[in-house]
Amino acid sequence: MSVPLQAPSERTQVKRIAENARYDKDSLYAIVDEAYVCHVAFHDQFGSHCIPTACWREGDSLYIHGANASRLCKELRKGTQACVAILHLDGLVLARAAFNHSMNYRSAMIYGSFEVVPEEEKADSMVAFMEKIAPGRQDQVRPGNRAELAGTTLLKISLQEAVCKTRQGGPNDDEEDLALPVWAGVLPLQLQALTPVAATTIQTVPEPDYVQAWVER
Amino acid sequence: MSVPLQAPSERTQVKRIAENARYDKDSLYAIVDEAYVCHVAFHDQFGSHCIPTACWREGDSLYIHGANASRLCKELRKGTQACVAILHLDGLVLARAAFNHSMNYRSAMIYGSFEVVPEEEKADSMVAFMEKIAPGRQDQVRPGNRAELAGTTLLKISLQEAVCKTRQGGPNDDEEDLALPVWAGVLPLQLQALTPVAATTIQTVPEPDYVQAWVER
Repeated sequence: MSVPLQAPSERTQVKRIAENARYDKDSLYAIVDEAYVCHVAFHDQFGSHCIPTACWREGDSLYIHGANASRLCKELRKGTQACVAILHLDGLVLARAAFNHSMNYRSAMIYGSFEVVPEEEKADSMVAFMEKIAPGRQDQVRPGNRAELAGTTLLKISLQEAVCKTRQGGPNDDEEDLALPVWAGVLPLQLQALTPVAATTIQTVPEPDYVQAWVER
Repeated sequence: MSVPLQAPSERTQVKRIAENARYDKDSLYAIVDEAYVCHVAFHDQFGSHCIPTACWREGDSLYIHGANASRLCKELRKGTQACVAILHLDGLVLARAAFNHSMNYRSAMIYGSFEVVPEEEKADSMVAFMEKIAPGRQDQVRPGNRAELAGTTLLKISLQEAVCKTRQGGPNDDEEDLALPVWAGVLPLQLQALTPVAATTIQTVPEPDYVQAWVER
């Protein structure tokens, strides 16, 4: 049995098709860990913004990073309330009735405020991000130097006030539509890894394990 | 030469790596038309929200829909300011230096307010959405009846105050890192169509063209 998250709040309580909601760590962390990117919503003097950015998880927090001078980092470091969404689109669901068409997906929404990752923790957190992208690569690349780390803001948000919503499976048609002579089913979608493309100047360097394994994921 | 969008506003002016920004219809509409989903950010009494939802384009507007009673529709129909983001993730970019790692992507951000699609235009707009999902399918399915349409809110937002930002190609390493003995290149990603899965109860119905063509897209 997966550990429950915080009890649903006014913001995370799913009301529509509530049986598709999940409020537990296993469901949430699986969705977060599969994602390379999230979308972050926040509000400033110019209005609401929705910004896609890379993300990773450490423990019970979701991490993002950016240039110190970016709008995202400048605003979120103030502790501005934010909402983070992650979506994996798994397919188009074709029903016999137009109204019952749907999509299959796994999604997560996280509410709260980001906090700035302290200077002394930044290097380790960037390593954790690299481990997600390409395990073992951190020992091969030139690590970030002082100036590069100093110019980067790392932010983390607790995964406590959060909810998952997923839909899987075939169409849910009304009983009276089931006999209609129309194809019904799912057109599946998947974010797939394609063949790695080496930078032309370095063909003499052998492919590391994580590159060889890329298309077999 | 593609038609320019509205001149960049305080909200759409890209400041970081500004050479990756585009402010023209061809760039924007290609990104919108390839997307099945967008993320919509808006702010209400509970804070900022970031909600993924299906989208399609008609003319110079982006359309979304939902149940009348959904938080999204109830709030946006008031004319609340919103930001819509669309992202196609195309790959992970592995550079020789940790700091120069990046992602390839095509993204769009649209700012403005949604307006409610009038009752008399809703049926046609839902057909336009179906045409995007599965061309020709509208003539095969049971169309939405009066109650189904009445329970659905359609909203549209102008694509004028918008910007695209894309990154493509290999890593941009610093000159002094180019000789480092580490693999550099791109791990490409693509949202791919997998084999259609027919609903078990209707195996006697032949596959329509758009289902047969699904995996060859």
